[in-house]
Amino acid sequence: MTNLKLAALNGDKQRRTVIAVGHVKIGMDFVVIAGPCSVESEEQTIRTAQKVKAAGANMLRGGAFKPRTSPYDFQGLGLKGLKILEKAKKETGLPVVTEVTDPRDVSWVCEYADVLQIGTRNMQNFSLLKEVGKVEKPVLLKRGMYSTLKEWLNCAEYILAEGNPNVILCERGIRTFETYTRNTLDLSIVPSVKEISHLPIIVDPSHGTGRLSIIEPMSLAAMAAGADGIIIEVHYNPSEAMCDKDQAMPPEMFASLMRRLQALRIHMNDVNGIH
Amino acid sequence: MTNLKLAALNGDKQRRTVIAVGHVKIGMDFVVIAGPCSVESEEQTIRTAQKVKAAGANMLRGGAFKPRTSPYDFQGLGLKGLKILEKAKKETGLPVVTEVTDPRDVSWVCEYADVLQIGTRNMQNFSLLKEVGKVEKPVLLKRGMYSTLKEWLNCAEYILAEGNPNVILCERGIRTFETYTRNTLDLSIVPSVKEISHLPIIVDPSHGTGRLSIIEPMSLAAMAAGADGIIIEVHYNPSEAMCDKDQAMPPEMFASLMRRLQALRIHMNDVNGIH
Amino acid sequence: MTNLKLAALNGDKQRRTVIAVGHVKIGMDFVVIAGPCSVESEEQTIRTAQKVKAAGANMLRGGAFKPRTSPYDFQGLGLKGLKILEKAKKETGLPVVTEVTDPRDVSWVCEYADVLQIGTRNMQNFSLLKEVGKVEKPVLLKRGMYSTLKEWLNCAEYILAEGNPNVILCERGIRTFETYTRNTLDLSIVPSVKEISHLPIIVDPSHGTGRLSIIEPMSLAAMAAGADGIIIEVHYNPSEAMCDKDQAMPPEMFASLMRRLQALRIHMNDVNGIH
Amino acid sequence: MTNLKLAALNGDKQRRTVIAVGHVKIGMDFVVIAGPCSVESEEQTIRTAQKVKAAGANMLRGGAFKPRTSPYDFQGLGLKGLKILEKAKKETGLPVVTEVTDPRDVSWVCEYADVLQIGTRNMQNFSLLKEVGKVEKPVLLKRGMYSTLKEWLNCAEYILAEGNPNVILCERGIRTFETYTRNTLDLSIVPSVKEISHLPIIVDPSHGTGRLSIIEPMSLAAMAAGADGIIIEVHYNPSEAMCDKDQAMPPEMFASLMRRLQALRIHMNDVNGIH
Repeated sequence: MTNLKLAALNGDKQRRTVIAVGHVKIGMDFVVIAGPCSVESEEQTIRTAQKVKAAGANMLRGGAFKPRTSPYDFQGLGLKGLKILEKAKKETGLPVVTEVTDPRDVSWVCEYADVLQIGTRNMQNFSLLKEVGKVEKPVLLKRGMYSTLKEWLNCAEYILAEGNPNVILCERGIRTFETYTRNTLDLSIVPSVKEISHLPIIVDPSHGTGRLSIIEPMSLAAMAAGADGIIIEVHYNPSEAMCDKDQAMPPEMFASLMRRLQALRIHMNDVNGIH
Repeated sequence: MTNLKLAALNGDKQRRTVIAVGHVKIGMDFVVIAGPCSVESEEQTIRTAQKVKAAGANMLRGGAFKPRTSPYDFQGLGLKGLKILEKAKKETGLPVVTEVTDPRDVSWVCEYADVLQIGTRNMQNFSLLKEVGKVEKPVLLKRGMYSTLKEWLNCAEYILAEGNPNVILCERGIRTFETYTRNTLDLSIVPSVKEISHLPIIVDPSHGTGRLSIIEPMSLAAMAAGADGIIIEVHYNPSEAMCDKDQAMPPEMFASLMRRLQALRIHMNDVNGIH
Repeated sequence: MTNLKLAALNGDKQRRTVIAVGHVKIGMDFVVIAGPCSVESEEQTIRTAQKVKAAGANMLRGGAFKPRTSPYDFQGLGLKGLKILEKAKKETGLPVVTEVTDPRDVSWVCEYADVLQIGTRNMQNFSLLKEVGKVEKPVLLKRGMYSTLKEWLNCAEYILAEGNPNVILCERGIRTFETYTRNTLDLSIVPSVKEISHLPIIVDPSHGTGRLSIIEPMSLAAMAAGADGIIIEVHYNPSEAMCDKDQAMPPEMFASLMRRLQALRIHMNDVNGIH
Repeated sequence: MTNLKLAALNGDKQRRTVIAVGHVKIGMDFVVIAGPCSVESEEQTIRTAQKVKAAGANMLRGGAFKPRTSPYDFQGLGLKGLKILEKAKKETGLPVVTEVTDPRDVSWVCEYADVLQIGTRNMQNFSLLKEVGKVEKPVLLKRGMYSTLKEWLNCAEYILAEGNPNVILCERGIRTFETYTRNTLDLSIVPSVKEISHLPIIVDPSHGTGRLSIIEPMSLAAMAAGADGIIIEVHYNPSEAMCDKDQAMPPEMFASLMRRLQALRIHMNDVNGIH
């Protein structure tokens, strides 16, 4: 793969990047990141955070800056949203993953985020990539909805080349002709990434499918394919969600998913011992 | 989903189609179909059949009629190939899955095949669909590489409407912009099919990825996503394969995959009991 | 381009295939093929044929065998439809282009068709390609909606290799993520074909766009891009059309399009003299 | 089309946006923007500018900030490049179109640019869109390589909603499975845009095809489809180009293209009078 000096495995199959965030070691443990699509209110965020924490999630997700197709759609609460995330972290102990969309915001968003997320629309926003490459916080880099593996890893390379070694890749579905699902979740990218890169990769079946009913099987499949984790949209009351209502998972469903994932996790560890 | 009278679940979530082929019940058991891309010789086919049988495969695949991009590429052995498959079946007891490409061949190919395969390029060859709809053998209907879920189920409907209720769907990867894999294996179609149709669905990670190294994780992921089986290209000596050399799995690798699948199968049964 | 022995230019840029059908020389003149999507009745077909003839069309299109997504949709009138086309030809003198979908039908459909059409869903129906390769009638080979240039030319090669040199390629739009148009009309395939093949290529902006309002600009663009002709769906009363109602052009609109095309044609001849 | 308050035609078919840049009125005249992919040196830029001016181009393009797949590829000369463009403008009188990639650069890049370009990778970089929405310079908004018409117009809406009414849309090819061309140039978007929006739209056949040999026919086709202009990569010596070498047009070829375009332009004006 041309031009990958830092993101590539370069022959050393043992050297896999492990990124510690709070108690979880991404790239070693299987990480579950959960929470609302967007931070809408203190109550919504904290109640959702408590629910996902109780179910066993490792980190809290929530958007304060929302890149939306239309300028007239809800754009997120901004700083107010970040402060709510801070409170939710204090309440639950869960580290916070939140999106940053503007290079001018990176330094101060770092004060609230444990992991900075780069969204699919900004995968090749190179100014933003360079900026998050200069800070110390890990970066969750979503795959562009039109992006090849090669292009994606080159975007990770932009971050790594600036000095930040902690990039977590996140498959979130690519754009195809199929309309039954919102995107086409490309799970084959998981072993493909493992084959040529040392970076951890997680999967977002919420955006990847856009259908609540198939998030669970795709989460189990992601684990079976070798993913290092998943990121799931959970809302304590999906019918009130201000965005992505159709894919927001209610807490009880998330708790059930977590039980199945934990069981499969034990089994996968056994399976990995079988040759 | 418009116009699906027979292939759709139509509200009865319990009524799932189960198709008995030899000892295996497709739609109830997890079926593994394995064998060479094309039947090249008696030795190649029988040796490969013995290997996959020994590893625990349930059925033998092998093409006697090969639809190839170029008219100058090997087109299969035709009747001679079918006779070799018949011998392999006698040797191993494995039922035979083989492709039919011409409506004029359907009746006599039925004498050799236990399951008739319709390839991706013929998914919307309606003359052929109607013809296999008139016989008693089960049909393995591959998804067109450009096909939506709706179109695919309508093709099954063509077969069902002619009177043959035994259609097995097979996801084999769709065509996207990604080039690292040969196709993009769309595992989300598995729970999607389960949601709206009662037909069984299996997965072809060999064609779906075109990369030997990632067939195993995608097979495990297919099982975790709820697939009713997989179909794998195995060649007793891949370096000699006349087609799809890069994705043909050697027997030892297949045996290892079978062990992992069998372990995961037991675990999945357990996991399915967890709520 | 691998394996193209007959369809490729192979260095001789002068040798372009010219196919005479009635008075028109496809590959030399700009041909306009027009008529209804499907033959629905004698009145509909003959009235439409008279209208397109009056407007200057060179050939009549009309489907007697209709490959439809659903088995419950109108499938065409079959032999009865072919007999109606025969009458329309007698009335207007227009040669007939009609689709054949089954290898068993090729020989007798030849008695009614001046040009045999292979539809997009059958582009890689190799049994059918071989059969039309054995007859003397020219073949209009539509591009598969998922097909690369290389695959398409290999399908032409299947026909040429059987002995029929008269293949007309037809771009009809490919499948992409865009939904505003029914397909994405790929006009860049026109000069691409001219660059590597000697076969004539025409464009189908009716299926290619699926929107009546943009068929005219895309027809003019096809001519400007160097296409050898266009094929247009016209219905003397679109509101009655049994298929593809939204893209069927009423006769007056077609007549206006023809006037613009004829004017542009004269100008293009001038433009081609400018270096 | 949901949520388009400003970019949509909203029923008034006469109200088309016309944007004056120097002597050219984009949306009324057919504009030709030409120049190198990237500004590499003073000599290269000024010599190329003189050539395209002599051939009749209306504006000069040239990148000082280059978004490149790999961080190790040439990233553009930055401010130095802008100063070279300023000189080239002084020499030739051609207004300058140049890309801006970072919201922090918008205000000072405006001092050098007559039109600000937003590249395909930044189409949904909403921070950047809002920033160019606040300045007075017209914006050339390239279509994202994965973008639907609806999403694209919503990005224009982001700019318009900030107060800048002067947005020029630019089709530059979308990503599909076809590999013969670098992208698939979607000319049907031209009449589609005209149908629902009042904004002018130009076409980039250089990036849209990535093949020098088919830029001319696609330029003529763009004009015939109703485009308001084209943007072409020209390099006075393509073999020396630091990026996009394969699609850079030498000056003589560009001059020939201009002669054909000018002739077709006169003819199109005639054709538009024919009903």
